[in-house]
Amino acid sequence: MPHLLIEITDNITIDQPKLLADANAALLASGQFNEPDIKARCAVLHTYRQGTEARRDGFIHATLSVLSGRSEPTRKALAESVRDAIVAAVPKERGYGVQISVDVREMLRDTYAKSVLPA
Amino acid sequence: MPHLLIEITDNITIDQPKLLADANAALLASGQFNEPDIKARCAVLHTYRQGTEARRDGFIHATLSVLSGRSEPTRKALAESVRDAIVAAVPKERGYGVQISVDVREMLRDTYAKSVLPA
Amino acid sequence: MPHLLIEITDNITIDQPKLLADANAALLASGQFNEPDIKARCAVLHTYRQGTEARRDGFIHATLSVLSGRSEPTRKALAESVRDAIVAAVPKERGYGVQISVDVREMLRDTYAKSVLPA
Repeated sequence: MPHLLIEITDNITIDQPKLLADANAALLASGQFNEPDIKARCAVLHTYRQGTEARRDGFIHATLSVLSGRSEPTRKALAESVRDAIVAAVPKERGYGVQISVDVREMLRDTYAKSVLPA
Repeated sequence: MPHLLIEITDNITIDQPKLLADANAALLASGQFNEPDIKARCAVLHTYRQGTEARRDGFIHATLSVLSGRSEPTRKALAESVRDAIVAAVPKERGYGVQISVDVREMLRDTYAKSVLPA
Repeated sequence: MPHLLIEITDNITIDQPKLLADANAALLASGQFNEPDIKARCAVLHTYRQGTEARRDGFIHATLSVLSGRSEPTRKALAESVRDAIVAAVPKERGYGVQISVDVREMLRDTYAKSVLPA
């Protein structure tokens, strides 16, 4: 925890490893999490549809899952920091629009199960 | 927003682009959303298991994520419209069963972050 | 329902079909679900990042989605049974650490839509 999923439509050119590194750095800088616990992944979308009209645009949607108990302003700030990392990663010269969104979900602490298996 | 994810086991023959187009059209027809904001994707499942017994059946599970604040009847109607689009997309002649389900999740509006980068 | 998603970083060697079979058996043994309704899938993560430092470690994260209305102790027990199935599936001799976590989400019963198409 936290778990970050970043979905990216496959028409967007992006350096995924750098984006994950930057997003994790932003999450660590929040002071809310321990370094080894921040876990992020990308999922590239090959079959997607935006709206009902033909368009060249793409979208990036992130879901950040955090254990319950953090304040709303804290969660909002986390969402904005991830959003900013994504905006910075999108090419400035691109010729298509990109919608970027971040949803913060709370995972109920009392029903969460975890085990850490050491190396 | 909304975000629609449709997971499909890989033993089901389905026209995914048409399904996404039909689902988005149904969501637009609800009057709840702006056309460019409806974002849908398919994920084909290659490694899955239904129950504990061997079977040929497949399943399709959709998760519709909407910003919080809509009434329960509205969300139920959205779920049913997506469910109906999926049912219509499944081949009538197929020789295997298909379970179809739709979960509607609310994304907390106050912690959602968004940016729209124009073309 | 239930829906189980198990995400696995691609540096972990694991028998995915056996893991799904064992997880489903554990869920069935809980007495909470009907056999044909337990639906599980794996997603292998190819682009991921844990923390901000270089490491060989991997992680497995499961999301178990159940219809609302079960008690917190019941949901906690379900999470632990899935966690235990995952721990048992990870190789004992491996040379890298593995973080394992299970999140239990409730799907709102009143807005869930379902259809079962028979064979």
